[in-house]
Amino acid sequence: MIGGGEGAFIGAVHRIAARMDNEIELVAGAFSSNAQKAKLSGEALGIAPERNYPDYATMITKEALLPANKRIHFVSIVTPNHVHFEPTKMALEKGFDVVLDKPMTLTLAEAKALAVIVENTQRTFCLTHTYTGYPMVKQAKQMVLNGTIGEIRKVYVEYPQGWLSTNLESTNQKQAAWRTDPTKSGIAGAMGDIGTHAFNLAEYVSNLQVTKLCADINIKVPGRLLDDDGAVLLKFNNGASGVLMATQIGAGEENNVKIRVFGTLGSVEWQQQDANTLAVRWLDAPTQIYRTGGGYNSSYASHNTRTPAGHPEGYLEAFANHYRNFALTVKAKLNNEMPLPEWLDFPGVAEGIRGMQFIERVIESGNSSTKWLDF
Amino acid sequence: MIGGGEGAFIGAVHRIAARMDNEIELVAGAFSSNAQKAKLSGEALGIAPERNYPDYATMITKEALLPANKRIHFVSIVTPNHVHFEPTKMALEKGFDVVLDKPMTLTLAEAKALAVIVENTQRTFCLTHTYTGYPMVKQAKQMVLNGTIGEIRKVYVEYPQGWLSTNLESTNQKQAAWRTDPTKSGIAGAMGDIGTHAFNLAEYVSNLQVTKLCADINIKVPGRLLDDDGAVLLKFNNGASGVLMATQIGAGEENNVKIRVFGTLGSVEWQQQDANTLAVRWLDAPTQIYRTGGGYNSSYASHNTRTPAGHPEGYLEAFANHYRNFALTVKAKLNNEMPLPEWLDFPGVAEGIRGMQFIERVIESGNSSTKWLDF
Amino acid sequence: MIGGGEGAFIGAVHRIAARMDNEIELVAGAFSSNAQKAKLSGEALGIAPERNYPDYATMITKEALLPANKRIHFVSIVTPNHVHFEPTKMALEKGFDVVLDKPMTLTLAEAKALAVIVENTQRTFCLTHTYTGYPMVKQAKQMVLNGTIGEIRKVYVEYPQGWLSTNLESTNQKQAAWRTDPTKSGIAGAMGDIGTHAFNLAEYVSNLQVTKLCADINIKVPGRLLDDDGAVLLKFNNGASGVLMATQIGAGEENNVKIRVFGTLGSVEWQQQDANTLAVRWLDAPTQIYRTGGGYNSSYASHNTRTPAGHPEGYLEAFANHYRNFALTVKAKLNNEMPLPEWLDFPGVAEGIRGMQFIERVIESGNSSTKWLDF
Amino acid sequence: MIGGGEGAFIGAVHRIAARMDNEIELVAGAFSSNAQKAKLSGEALGIAPERNYPDYATMITKEALLPANKRIHFVSIVTPNHVHFEPTKMALEKGFDVVLDKPMTLTLAEAKALAVIVENTQRTFCLTHTYTGYPMVKQAKQMVLNGTIGEIRKVYVEYPQGWLSTNLESTNQKQAAWRTDPTKSGIAGAMGDIGTHAFNLAEYVSNLQVTKLCADINIKVPGRLLDDDGAVLLKFNNGASGVLMATQIGAGEENNVKIRVFGTLGSVEWQQQDANTLAVRWLDAPTQIYRTGGGYNSSYASHNTRTPAGHPEGYLEAFANHYRNFALTVKAKLNNEMPLPEWLDFPGVAEGIRGMQFIERVIESGNSSTKWLDF
Repeated sequence: MIGGGEGAFIGAVHRIAARMDNEIELVAGAFSSNAQKAKLSGEALGIAPERNYPDYATMITKEALLPANKRIHFVSIVTPNHVHFEPTKMALEKGFDVVLDKPMTLTLAEAKALAVIVENTQRTFCLTHTYTGYPMVKQAKQMVLNGTIGEIRKVYVEYPQGWLSTNLESTNQKQAAWRTDPTKSGIAGAMGDIGTHAFNLAEYVSNLQVTKLCADINIKVPGRLLDDDGAVLLKFNNGASGVLMATQIGAGEENNVKIRVFGTLGSVEWQQQDANTLAVRWLDAPTQIYRTGGGYNSSYASHNTRTPAGHPEGYLEAFANHYRNFALTVKAKLNNEMPLPEWLDFPGVAEGIRGMQFIERVIESGNSSTKWLDF
Repeated sequence: MIGGGEGAFIGAVHRIAARMDNEIELVAGAFSSNAQKAKLSGEALGIAPERNYPDYATMITKEALLPANKRIHFVSIVTPNHVHFEPTKMALEKGFDVVLDKPMTLTLAEAKALAVIVENTQRTFCLTHTYTGYPMVKQAKQMVLNGTIGEIRKVYVEYPQGWLSTNLESTNQKQAAWRTDPTKSGIAGAMGDIGTHAFNLAEYVSNLQVTKLCADINIKVPGRLLDDDGAVLLKFNNGASGVLMATQIGAGEENNVKIRVFGTLGSVEWQQQDANTLAVRWLDAPTQIYRTGGGYNSSYASHNTRTPAGHPEGYLEAFANHYRNFALTVKAKLNNEMPLPEWLDFPGVAEGIRGMQFIERVIESGNSSTKWLDF
Repeated sequence: MIGGGEGAFIGAVHRIAARMDNEIELVAGAFSSNAQKAKLSGEALGIAPERNYPDYATMITKEALLPANKRIHFVSIVTPNHVHFEPTKMALEKGFDVVLDKPMTLTLAEAKALAVIVENTQRTFCLTHTYTGYPMVKQAKQMVLNGTIGEIRKVYVEYPQGWLSTNLESTNQKQAAWRTDPTKSGIAGAMGDIGTHAFNLAEYVSNLQVTKLCADINIKVPGRLLDDDGAVLLKFNNGASGVLMATQIGAGEENNVKIRVFGTLGSVEWQQQDANTLAVRWLDAPTQIYRTGGGYNSSYASHNTRTPAGHPEGYLEAFANHYRNFALTVKAKLNNEMPLPEWLDFPGVAEGIRGMQFIERVIESGNSSTKWLDF
Repeated sequence: MIGGGEGAFIGAVHRIAARMDNEIELVAGAFSSNAQKAKLSGEALGIAPERNYPDYATMITKEALLPANKRIHFVSIVTPNHVHFEPTKMALEKGFDVVLDKPMTLTLAEAKALAVIVENTQRTFCLTHTYTGYPMVKQAKQMVLNGTIGEIRKVYVEYPQGWLSTNLESTNQKQAAWRTDPTKSGIAGAMGDIGTHAFNLAEYVSNLQVTKLCADINIKVPGRLLDDDGAVLLKFNNGASGVLMATQIGAGEENNVKIRVFGTLGSVEWQQQDANTLAVRWLDAPTQIYRTGGGYNSSYASHNTRTPAGHPEGYLEAFANHYRNFALTVKAKLNNEMPLPEWLDFPGVAEGIRGMQFIERVIESGNSSTKWLDF
């Protein structure tokens, strides 16, 4: 693991997620850009001293020198955005598969460069867009894909948070600090941090691609350097239209990500706060409530479920689904087996580039007086 | 009453609403533009034959000739949009107060002309934007007005319906037919029918005014002549931003109007499907659930509540609140008394003009390649 | 109307309910046992002085002397329980139909006596068990009746309230005072006031009858004279078992009546706080959400619906459904027509006697050390 | 680990829960009473061959012979009820701490005997009553303990499931088979399997103890040998009363465990299907919604939370909380440190005995014609 030392949030989530299904063991790390902190973090995590590295370059270099059956199988990179490209590139080129936290990189150019490297190295690459790991999100995607709700006409996706309602970054809160710092986060704040999640969710569930957008991008908290709020009108490649809303100044909101997709025959609705429920509505029939663990679900939902219906699975399980599917895919490739389609259903390079393109376009649109921008 | 004969929807709603609080009795009507149908409808409603008029002009003229204590006190106009201006004008000028179904008129020009007549005649005028009649919507407005949730930064308002997902107008369904006919509905379809409700709700609860907008306006059902879907980015006079979503092709949605207003300190959320609940969220305190009938509510909410908490009040009661407040105001004026502020809290001319301006601007924006249009 | 003067709660509800559908007009009343208060209340309601009676005996006697086309068609009796039997008896015997608030009488013996009178006079009699007036409760009953969820095995019904959590009666709150006074309420407090509602709802939806019960009956607030809390184990005539819970000391609860009926194939769940929703669950299929106004509903639900789906109907509409069905039945009989089955679906004598029997048995069981008592 | 081989449900849950927080590693096991199946299961789990034991006696004996730093630190026992007592006894006596799945044993006598052994050996013992591991359940307990909602008057607890609505045991479904077999499950079916969970939850949240009960215990599915449904009236040691409902024939229900505790000042409500929410209601103030991750929560809730508010935690995390607290306690003891009160908040011997006593009494009451039985 690269990053995720003390004070980090997403690193701990990655570790729990990776551990959950007994497919993955954490054996080496460079847990901080500060060598001393890296050391202490690794010790706290029980990493053997000789594999508790002071920096990622050392880790990748040294691990690559170990015999194949002794070295790490893949690298998880959970650093701030500005430390995504280099370690990913290095890991891929040294022959390691990679799990990378979103967004893919600091810039679209970097993302495209990484894509080439993944293509050339033929490594397995996973980008942790958490929400598509939820079984009911997968169920929604499959139902849309199968035409159950007809031709898609409208997509609403939203991600309201309230935690940046005040100038939290001025208090040295680490999460707020780097996310609002253009040198670490890139050109976007809320749009990069959660807008990309909403965007990814919209394209995943709708099985469509955005072709045009028109954005209202705002900085609501005085003194902040990056956007903390935005709304985007969308056009999709089949002619559907959509709305994406993402805000970090939605006072009182937690992580209330929600998606609704409307077709000619019906619609699907999913919301993280009731993550094990998928509402499926019809033109004139009772709404159906699909639930995680229901025997009627698609193989994509069932494969990603651990407990019987009614015992809620949550965020960590959704995250773990990506790790598990990534690990199953990696193992299959190692064994020269064909991964199942359900295993391959994790976000990768294509989703990463789409996300970076979203960031670039949405910020450009926010600054533009032209209404519609091509994606 | 003018309009609301057999086959109509909103006329029956108006009658129940007017009747509910025993302040108003229906004694005369011109219930259809078809004289025969008007006659039958009036008979079915138990109207005395001599006051069951063949057309509105006759009604207004004849009623105006009756002695003051024998004639109607006010007129309810529940016709399609293209028959709003003339009967309202005539009624006002003949000395009658008016309750008018929204939107105010067919065009903004008509609305402005009516405003002048209301001003000149000093009659009482109510425009039935139903949703602001709900006690918990009034509670939300008062809490925002009192600064409870701080300075407003963001408004989300949405009104998804699914009933026009198919080409219902081609089946001669009366409600669908006139609402999708530009000669009867005006330049807007969904935006006029439900977009205006959402717009009114947003300005009412936020206590703000829209100053700019950017709209995506669509016709989703082939062959339809007016918009059946749209989304609008908003800017408000205090710098807040917002999103308005209204669709009639949201397959499976009923009348799912919802509003969220975010301030610097907290936020409020109300949704018609759980109409007696107002969620109030805070930066870091438990969410509070205000409920119709709670002893802690404002006088504006309490005044508009009929039953103890937990016995749900609904759409008809919200509608009736406008009628009751209108009636209390009219009676107070008749008695040369000052109406209470709670009574005066019903939509009138100002809201009507705002709504018509919204329709004109939102359609203009939908057709424009310029991003932001001044309101 | 008898009772329902100022300070009363349920009288006003009856009046709104009666008025809602334009079938019924309030023209006479004896609104209080206090003649002066009766007079003032009648004046406030706009009753003609000559029909604003000082007491119910005068009203019934005088109205009976009027010619058939001038007198009242029926009497609504909304007094406390100890003033149910006499006015009902008198009204029936003088030839008036009766709407009576629940529970039917002060004692079971009175209820049985009234039943004989109804039978002998062949008058139409309605007992206002509100909750069976909700469209989705009717839908649930019909689905159970049609075998949709199989053979019924289990019934849970509950009615928690919190308003009597303190010794409210000591503050002269009128509603609390008579409900906790054995001379006015009878032998039961909570069990009579809301337990009977829960019991009626259980038998109505399940289409079953209770045959045995075992009750835990409590007085939780010191100094109170009647039960304010209870729970009852039930056995039904088909072998199903059930639980009935009713409390008035459920601090923070409003009027949270809820029923769940489980069959061999599925189950139905309805709750007043989400009154327009009926959840229908299946052994292994997605839960279905039936909604008021849905085109798929039974004729019993549709007949009792006034607004399109999504515009919530509530408690007053449920109440009004009983009045409307009663009025339609009365009119049909007057016209020598056969009332539709949907019209006849309001609570009457049979439900009244069952309710009184429930009160007697449940209190007896509460005082007994024997487990099961025959109903 | 003892038990939990292929086809088992709860063993896999235990493994994920134990693994989640990186405190515990699975290194040895006797995964089935069938030696061949045990071997295969252990191999699938990656257990070293020499520690993949054919039966629990061998495992305990051999592990006890290993040096302290090489042997297992504790044993997880996840077998059916009839294989709880012997391995637990043996493990404790050989010096191992134990995590045991509920209910504690096959009989109350066994539970009492185990309690003596735990006392004598001074080992750490955890009984996995999952639901008290949820942060919001802990929050509820603490609020009740602190008197926030006043003196407790009423407790409603319920656990409806539907999975045994049919004679599933006749299809050789392993979970159904042993749970409905008296030789493996003991004298109770539903009451032992889920009634004990409900009972434990009620005593935990209310901070009270049941002193009397009156039960209706049923076998609803023909041919079944143990109860699949029951309801119990309860009396608590402070005079509060309660109702416990547990059924496995609630067709369409998942694992819908719910608890409501009413005090003189307010009430708390928690339901597994919305596990990160705790509703706190007041006599006349808005209901408050406490949420997992809220900064306002007690240390007991916060300590048991892994993710920020709004990222749902679920059943596996609740389960993991018990494992983590057990592990922290074991480690503290190993280090001669005092465990924090928050760590000690996991179910143990006392809860195990209460649960077994509940099973014996509730079945006795079900067969009795006496109303109240002392607990």
